[in-house]
Amino acid sequence: MSIIDQAAPIGVFDSGLGGLTVLQALRERLPHERFVFLGDSARCPYGPREPKEVKAFVLQICSHLARRGCKMIIIACNTATAAGLPAAQQAFDIPIVGVVMPGARAAVHMTRNRRVGVIATEGTVQQGVYGEAIHHLDAGIKVIQKATPEFVSIAESGFEEMDEGTTQAAPFSLKEECQRVAQGYLAPLRAEGIDTLVLGCTHYPLIQELISQEMGPSVTLVSSAEETAREVRAILSRRDELRSPGEDDGVEVLITGDDATKFTRVAQKVLGITPPITKVMLDEVREEGEGTS
Amino acid sequence: MSIIDQAAPIGVFDSGLGGLTVLQALRERLPHERFVFLGDSARCPYGPREPKEVKAFVLQICSHLARRGCKMIIIACNTATAAGLPAAQQAFDIPIVGVVMPGARAAVHMTRNRRVGVIATEGTVQQGVYGEAIHHLDAGIKVIQKATPEFVSIAESGFEEMDEGTTQAAPFSLKEECQRVAQGYLAPLRAEGIDTLVLGCTHYPLIQELISQEMGPSVTLVSSAEETAREVRAILSRRDELRSPGEDDGVEVLITGDDATKFTRVAQKVLGITPPITKVMLDEVREEGEGTS
Repeated sequence: MSIIDQAAPIGVFDSGLGGLTVLQALRERLPHERFVFLGDSARCPYGPREPKEVKAFVLQICSHLARRGCKMIIIACNTATAAGLPAAQQAFDIPIVGVVMPGARAAVHMTRNRRVGVIATEGTVQQGVYGEAIHHLDAGIKVIQKATPEFVSIAESGFEEMDEGTTQAAPFSLKEECQRVAQGYLAPLRAEGIDTLVLGCTHYPLIQELISQEMGPSVTLVSSAEETAREVRAILSRRDELRSPGEDDGVEVLITGDDATKFTRVAQKVLGITPPITKVMLDEVREEGEGTS
Repeated sequence: MSIIDQAAPIGVFDSGLGGLTVLQALRERLPHERFVFLGDSARCPYGPREPKEVKAFVLQICSHLARRGCKMIIIACNTATAAGLPAAQQAFDIPIVGVVMPGARAAVHMTRNRRVGVIATEGTVQQGVYGEAIHHLDAGIKVIQKATPEFVSIAESGFEEMDEGTTQAAPFSLKEECQRVAQGYLAPLRAEGIDTLVLGCTHYPLIQELISQEMGPSVTLVSSAEETAREVRAILSRRDELRSPGEDDGVEVLITGDDATKFTRVAQKVLGITPPITKVMLDEVREEGEGTS
């Protein structure tokens, strides 16, 4: 029964930098909204952690963003979505959207030969969330999932190197090495004859070109960042909760670690702006997140 | 790996007349498409039948529509979607869309207080498909499902009576009786404080006004017919498979029973046209529908 404040910000969070691709996709589709982005950099990465621990982090961060008055929260991380989305939806009154379902739905819409690949971190692949989400929509689609964890470090190092003066056309000094890794990961997916590939980690849109070169023009890439932004726009638009143009739109970045310099640099690249960055302390995890509905 | 013929028709089927509301919603959103509608009137209604039997009917009808070259099939019936959608998706190469997921997604988007009602036939309610589909998208939404089987006969009799000269403003000679039934069904949902009500049977859009009067202006009605049409348009649009304007667009109606006169009359009301109606014989059910993926 909560009254929605249309002017309230949208909360977006990730363990680290990857979620900035989701934030940027949201900004493009929702230019009048305000955003609060929280990067849990002190505890990054989430990938190798136990799902139970990640779920507790998700509830803790949602609690923080809800207290800041967010009208909606986007879990801009596949690992966190897989581990904590249902618990967060049960615990809070505001809509909470993950990145898995929108990506799965787009893949179902796009595939013609009904063979879909998914690349993601090992945690996301092991939990099988994309396979489940795709089959929930179309039980006849063949889903081939592949863990491609090194893509995360390639995506992050790509950014670092661009700062050191290489051009956008050749963002990696170790370009051939990256292509070799990509070939090793992606050749088996090519061999499976997929026509659609889901980028199931929010870091991957940063190296979309590398992946696209390896897969060839006949394979459509689905960015879960882009699809999540479409979904959020659909929700706010349907509910007539899109924000009117105003003076104070913009982005605020909160981080939990001591890497403000890195965040500033990457935010400038991904968002094209220099948002204010504040270090925050999250409250202790309490057992609050279970079953209010 | 099938090559899609954009000019091919879209197949739509239901056990009876209710699916015409889905067909009409599709025609409004996709004015250049051709449609083949199959009404399995010889075996109507599906509601009281065993799910296994309904699943066999679904596979048989999909086989018939696929042989007629349909590029896509819409199961315009909640009972048939619940019983046969996954099996049909596994058995055929073309996209097959049911009415449950689109309605569930719209309800998740629209509810503000996260209390959603679903009215449907007893079969659909017993199988709990809407609760499952809604919780797959948002685990925190409270779903209250209610079987309202008499609404089917009210919807059908409403049409009959309009033919006998009553006005659109008062389509039921037994108007008070219908309101009494509606009140009995819907008062408990009102008492639950829902703000969104899914019309989980394709007959119900025909009596939307009756339901709306009873629920009041604060409750948003979700038509699974309308939402399914939105979903189909999204799929074809994304895949660039929308049909170009042509000479031979239109609707062909196939029925399995001897009720061509009734179908003609209702099609005129719902679609505003008089489509050609042909009686067809379906092939025997074979054990073909299982697991090709």
